[in-house]
Amino acid sequence: MGFAERRKKLYEWMNAEGIALAMFQDNEERRDAAIRWLTGQPGDALLFLSADGKALLVPWDMNVARLYSSCDFLLPFTDYALDPLRAMEAATAHFKTPAGSKIEIPSSTPYPDFLQTVDKTPNFDIICRRDGIRSEVERLRAVKDDDEIRVYRTLSEFTNKIIDAIEKNVRDGTLKTEADAAVFIEFEARVLGCEGTGFTTLAAGAERSFGIHAFPPYTAAAFAGPGLSILDFGVVYRGYTSDVTMTFARGPLSKRQETRLALVADAFELAMSKVKDGAPCRNIAQSVDGLFKKARLSMPHGLGHGIGLQPHEQPFLRSRADNEWKLAPGMIFTIEPGLYDPVEGGCRFENDILLTENGAEILTRSKIVRL
Amino acid sequence: MGFAERRKKLYEWMNAEGIALAMFQDNEERRDAAIRWLTGQPGDALLFLSADGKALLVPWDMNVARLYSSCDFLLPFTDYALDPLRAMEAATAHFKTPAGSKIEIPSSTPYPDFLQTVDKTPNFDIICRRDGIRSEVERLRAVKDDDEIRVYRTLSEFTNKIIDAIEKNVRDGTLKTEADAAVFIEFEARVLGCEGTGFTTLAAGAERSFGIHAFPPYTAAAFAGPGLSILDFGVVYRGYTSDVTMTFARGPLSKRQETRLALVADAFELAMSKVKDGAPCRNIAQSVDGLFKKARLSMPHGLGHGIGLQPHEQPFLRSRADNEWKLAPGMIFTIEPGLYDPVEGGCRFENDILLTENGAEILTRSKIVRL
Repeated sequence: MGFAERRKKLYEWMNAEGIALAMFQDNEERRDAAIRWLTGQPGDALLFLSADGKALLVPWDMNVARLYSSCDFLLPFTDYALDPLRAMEAATAHFKTPAGSKIEIPSSTPYPDFLQTVDKTPNFDIICRRDGIRSEVERLRAVKDDDEIRVYRTLSEFTNKIIDAIEKNVRDGTLKTEADAAVFIEFEARVLGCEGTGFTTLAAGAERSFGIHAFPPYTAAAFAGPGLSILDFGVVYRGYTSDVTMTFARGPLSKRQETRLALVADAFELAMSKVKDGAPCRNIAQSVDGLFKKARLSMPHGLGHGIGLQPHEQPFLRSRADNEWKLAPGMIFTIEPGLYDPVEGGCRFENDILLTENGAEILTRSKIVRL
Repeated sequence: MGFAERRKKLYEWMNAEGIALAMFQDNEERRDAAIRWLTGQPGDALLFLSADGKALLVPWDMNVARLYSSCDFLLPFTDYALDPLRAMEAATAHFKTPAGSKIEIPSSTPYPDFLQTVDKTPNFDIICRRDGIRSEVERLRAVKDDDEIRVYRTLSEFTNKIIDAIEKNVRDGTLKTEADAAVFIEFEARVLGCEGTGFTTLAAGAERSFGIHAFPPYTAAAFAGPGLSILDFGVVYRGYTSDVTMTFARGPLSKRQETRLALVADAFELAMSKVKDGAPCRNIAQSVDGLFKKARLSMPHGLGHGIGLQPHEQPFLRSRADNEWKLAPGMIFTIEPGLYDPVEGGCRFENDILLTENGAEILTRSKIVRL
């Protein structure tokens, strides 16, 4: 599905909702991958969709936009002093948006900015809501199309190459420190033609693996020494990120450490057995919570999450009461049970899953590596 | 100045403003370095300050918080299902905040979240405003205290070591690609004891240096070949980031490239000549805009910005009409004139400046490297 087809779906939605103009915003303060999904523009831009079926991109860097973006019109954001309100004024003039019509601004718009927008845009009806166009884009993005699934097949191959190389290099002693492992991933990603990593790699040796997200993310300290070490990373290809976690277990391990490793592996299997078209994401997460609870343990984070142009996106596999998402073919998400203890250390086992018409497919080959 | 002293300044401000409780929020969606500045907690937490002089931190990861944070009370965010509203309810119960009193929530709170907060917190007066506690923290953070200046002295030494090593390694051919340079920085930062890099390193060879922020940030392509290449990076020590840009110019250069290099160097000098206690940031930026305009060129970004716990913070040295900031002793900021052209490539020259009672001090030794 091309960018124009994605936008077409939104024009239909806008017409049904009576929205004349919709604004998307991606900047350092508030990222929104919708702009890349809709135009290819990698970031730092505003996007205006007009219900009559046209798209206006207002990028910070015109040179980058000319190379990467697909849209009907381009205007430099610097012409409006990077002021979203001035750019919106230009957009309504450009599209001749009829006075009195509805303009939807991002649901992430801060309350003080919302007030200012309403104040400075008296000729239009400003809409800012939770279940608006941003949610619609999230709903659409949660189910990957054929192009995106092809990207994930390539991306998973790259990710698996890196997983295998890391296991080999840790075993043969080439990667000795957290920084060795993390920097290896950064470099290999570029050699493979990836844009980068999807988030800061977390490489936590046995002394630090108790943190859900180790802080600092990685250091010059030893990695994969005695006990449990965690390596959580993802690489980005054509905007899309993978997300896997390897646990390195160097014996002799305590009985408690062995129990935790076994539980995390069981939890992954349990979750996978429930991955089916129509399965409520909440139930899958709850079944794993139940497994850990029986062992008088608990997981301080969700069981998994969608991946795509953002490292965390819908659907979230978590047990919160407000989670009403159900799995559907085309969804790509992580399953990542983990247990953490200040004394025993932490372990997490995470792979990327694609649900197809024919069932679940584990795209990545992350593992618990015994040393 | 310790964390408790910083908080004390805010309690005084809160009492003067009649705010009983103030909430800060730092998560993946919306980062706020105020929490680290006030408690040491590196992220993923809520912070509640009570006007009676007590601080309650609600971190996602209690293990990390116990190691890094300084505050009066700790409650696990997972006890409230990571729901800020439930955590706020716990905070008002904990502090016995009197019904009817004012609670200030972050100015970045999205409009729909603001509505929900007001709806679910009928016993309190919810305040969300632009010139509120977040601005007050920004104002305080813009002037670094003695502890922070000491951190910057060490950090600048580390940054300068890396600058010198990169120049040497590019000259002797050890660093050949964009990825070589970027990954070298990641690794050396950890060896020096830094937490990481302050933002994704931008390494753009001559083919790609026309982008203000090259996309992708770095690749496996050649670096520092014929023409102009840009390397923009910062390393983080104890939470604080540096931010420098080196330009590598390998001849023979066109006359236009030479002109641009000279202009950028002149712009840096011109800006430095205006860095003084009380100088309006806007005027400094405008003087550089004027210099470029005379040469019929323009810079598509601001002249500089404060650095600290965030890579971009107050004071911003830019020429926008609404910029009312003035320089003051203790401020640490970048000056980074740059010019970009799809044909000639880009060049930027950026260093970190500390303004003291005795005048400006250039902390870093970035440079335009002739090859």
